[in-house]
Amino acid sequence: MLTDLADLTACAAALDAADPLAAVRDRFLLPDGVVYLDGNSLGALPAAVPAAVEDAVHRQWGTDLIRSWNANGWWEAPVRTGDAIGRLVGAAPGQVVAGDSTSVQLFNTLLAAARSRPGRRLLLTDPDHFPTDQYIADSVGRLLGLDVRRVPARDAAAVLAAEAGNVAVAAYAPVDYRTGELYDMAALTAAAHAAGALMHWDLCHAAGALPVELDAVEADFAVGCGYKYLSGGPGAPAFAYIAHRHQEGFDHPLTGWHGHAEPFAMAGTYTPAADVTRARIGTPALLSLIALEAALTAFDGVEMTAVRKKSLSLTGFFQECADLLLDGLGFTPATPREPERRGSQVALRHPEAYPLVAALTARGVIGDMRAPDLLRFGFNALYVTHADVLRAVRELRDIAVTGAHLAPEFRQRPTVT
Amino acid sequence: MLTDLADLTACAAALDAADPLAAVRDRFLLPDGVVYLDGNSLGALPAAVPAAVEDAVHRQWGTDLIRSWNANGWWEAPVRTGDAIGRLVGAAPGQVVAGDSTSVQLFNTLLAAARSRPGRRLLLTDPDHFPTDQYIADSVGRLLGLDVRRVPARDAAAVLAAEAGNVAVAAYAPVDYRTGELYDMAALTAAAHAAGALMHWDLCHAAGALPVELDAVEADFAVGCGYKYLSGGPGAPAFAYIAHRHQEGFDHPLTGWHGHAEPFAMAGTYTPAADVTRARIGTPALLSLIALEAALTAFDGVEMTAVRKKSLSLTGFFQECADLLLDGLGFTPATPREPERRGSQVALRHPEAYPLVAALTARGVIGDMRAPDLLRFGFNALYVTHADVLRAVRELRDIAVTGAHLAPEFRQRPTVT
Repeated sequence: MLTDLADLTACAAALDAADPLAAVRDRFLLPDGVVYLDGNSLGALPAAVPAAVEDAVHRQWGTDLIRSWNANGWWEAPVRTGDAIGRLVGAAPGQVVAGDSTSVQLFNTLLAAARSRPGRRLLLTDPDHFPTDQYIADSVGRLLGLDVRRVPARDAAAVLAAEAGNVAVAAYAPVDYRTGELYDMAALTAAAHAAGALMHWDLCHAAGALPVELDAVEADFAVGCGYKYLSGGPGAPAFAYIAHRHQEGFDHPLTGWHGHAEPFAMAGTYTPAADVTRARIGTPALLSLIALEAALTAFDGVEMTAVRKKSLSLTGFFQECADLLLDGLGFTPATPREPERRGSQVALRHPEAYPLVAALTARGVIGDMRAPDLLRFGFNALYVTHADVLRAVRELRDIAVTGAHLAPEFRQRPTVT
Repeated sequence: MLTDLADLTACAAALDAADPLAAVRDRFLLPDGVVYLDGNSLGALPAAVPAAVEDAVHRQWGTDLIRSWNANGWWEAPVRTGDAIGRLVGAAPGQVVAGDSTSVQLFNTLLAAARSRPGRRLLLTDPDHFPTDQYIADSVGRLLGLDVRRVPARDAAAVLAAEAGNVAVAAYAPVDYRTGELYDMAALTAAAHAAGALMHWDLCHAAGALPVELDAVEADFAVGCGYKYLSGGPGAPAFAYIAHRHQEGFDHPLTGWHGHAEPFAMAGTYTPAADVTRARIGTPALLSLIALEAALTAFDGVEMTAVRKKSLSLTGFFQECADLLLDGLGFTPATPREPERRGSQVALRHPEAYPLVAALTARGVIGDMRAPDLLRFGFNALYVTHADVLRAVRELRDIAVTGAHLAPEFRQRPTVT
């Protein structure tokens, strides 16, 4: 058991020295002196991205111009990038398309899922789900005449059993975006299937953060974002997973021309492509998509089991440091201690969460907060070190002890946090 | 009247010498030796873009990281860029949002428009509309239980009058994407309103190409793409216009969290923002959006009336050159001769359209084609010259006369054209 700062310092050094992923940190361009624990909101810049984007701008767009659709593989980019994401979330090729935002992909896949269970009146989602997920579920429910019932993840299996035959889709996230609590994807998917419902997963806080096995757990549909643990850049394209067995019947509302069986026939009626390309919508934002594709090379040769092992080491070490250094300073843990119930972030509650996070940022330790009282720290195992973790908790302790966060400059709530 | 090649050459030189927009061409990075007449599909690279994108990647993303949402104006980018587009399409500030693809914006605005005319059973759209527009109209019609009737633009006013009281929305484009034919936005909008219907415009081939006066013609909703005449880059974000008077009642299906009245309250139910920010959906693809915003500076100080004047000069000159040089070579004009019926492109029909366009491309003259037999040439007045026009027609003549396009390498249809 760690009992003092010297122990913690030595422990961090030892863990980092033994880290098999240590060299992967060099695949990211991190600013000097910054401890970045907000990769669960916007991943850091992968070193492969700038050259890829410069090439996309100057050579592909500027010189090859329209010819790039063929010459530089623009047309295939959504599925090519989708397959690269698929490798990180346990999806065999041909089931993932990258593009659009998570909100849009949610709407498209959730509505299609619900349509494929006609006669069922219920759509289950989580009251602790990220806001967009709840809003979109309500929108889909309204359009299709379904009732949207908010059931916490921990109770979902029981409700599915009680409402067997009545639930069209259960739409959940494996990781709670606030607390970082991790749920059992296999168990909930099985519960949905036992009730004859389809399982829709939002992987925003899971993809790239921990092993996800979409095919193995027999997930039906999933979406996720490209800019958190995948480090694809600000507003990077999202992705949608449509399991092979659902592609032929995928009856989605966003019938853009890129999903047509013969897009360049320019037909006046929509004939969907037979495969996952049906889930393409309109022309993808290629500069952002090319950045995401380049970013994904940071995972080359990296096993998600190794990512998970280091991630748990980082989050566990953060919790240990917090136990020792933040005791008595008004913080309450919000993230489960059991590794199997923890995603790749740790959240603490504190009534002064806003100014604390602002003061931390001023010292170069970047986390974020969620109203009203949650400090969130995300750990991307590809570039965060145990030394980062210790420095973050030490700075947080120093701020809380000295009251540095009570200075006026930290009390102004920014637009976006 | 121009009667021979010497005349045409002199004419092109004189027109270019007198062109008040000549200097604007320097705002674009055009490859040497290329005549680019495909700006109606993908606009050329504006010179302001590379530095803006590099700054977005290295400084904003790489260094400022998550702080950029506040520090670098990411949060406001969709409306800021929307307002910049609004200036080019006759929309006062606060009515345009940039983001997502045209297909997505179409769906969101068309469904909202139809919802605001309850009890009306018809949705009118153009059988010559771009495919996505027709597919999305069908999708919206199916979700809301409306009949979608395809009525050509030239007949729409009559059908609106005959079906007054029954049409919810008329969804048209001012410019036919194949022939370049231009329709009267004011007249069709008035006809829709006289029938109690709402008017929805797709400006993909109009925004940045010619003066559009959304406010003045009292358009209700509009969408458009960022990558054609706005030159925002491959798959640049689209935009949506929601007239001020419709914002409070804008009842859209894509209720992403960025459109919430208080997005960072992270509430479980959707309360839409009171203004145009309600039309925001999810997190925008910022690298692409920042490229688009930078691209729009190519219009700084440029009046759309001047763009229109030059555009008509370019398209008219193309038609004159084609009359003289392509006579008897199997081409049929597909674009109206009257300036008031012409957008900013000229299309020719020829049974060998594919290989002709491919052979032209090999000679550095880039246009495109649309199946089965249409050669399309788009003229962005910001960077195309009359000398470009003449060279294009001369090369086309030479290819057609010599049969150079019949070589095997030009007969292979590419994936995307």
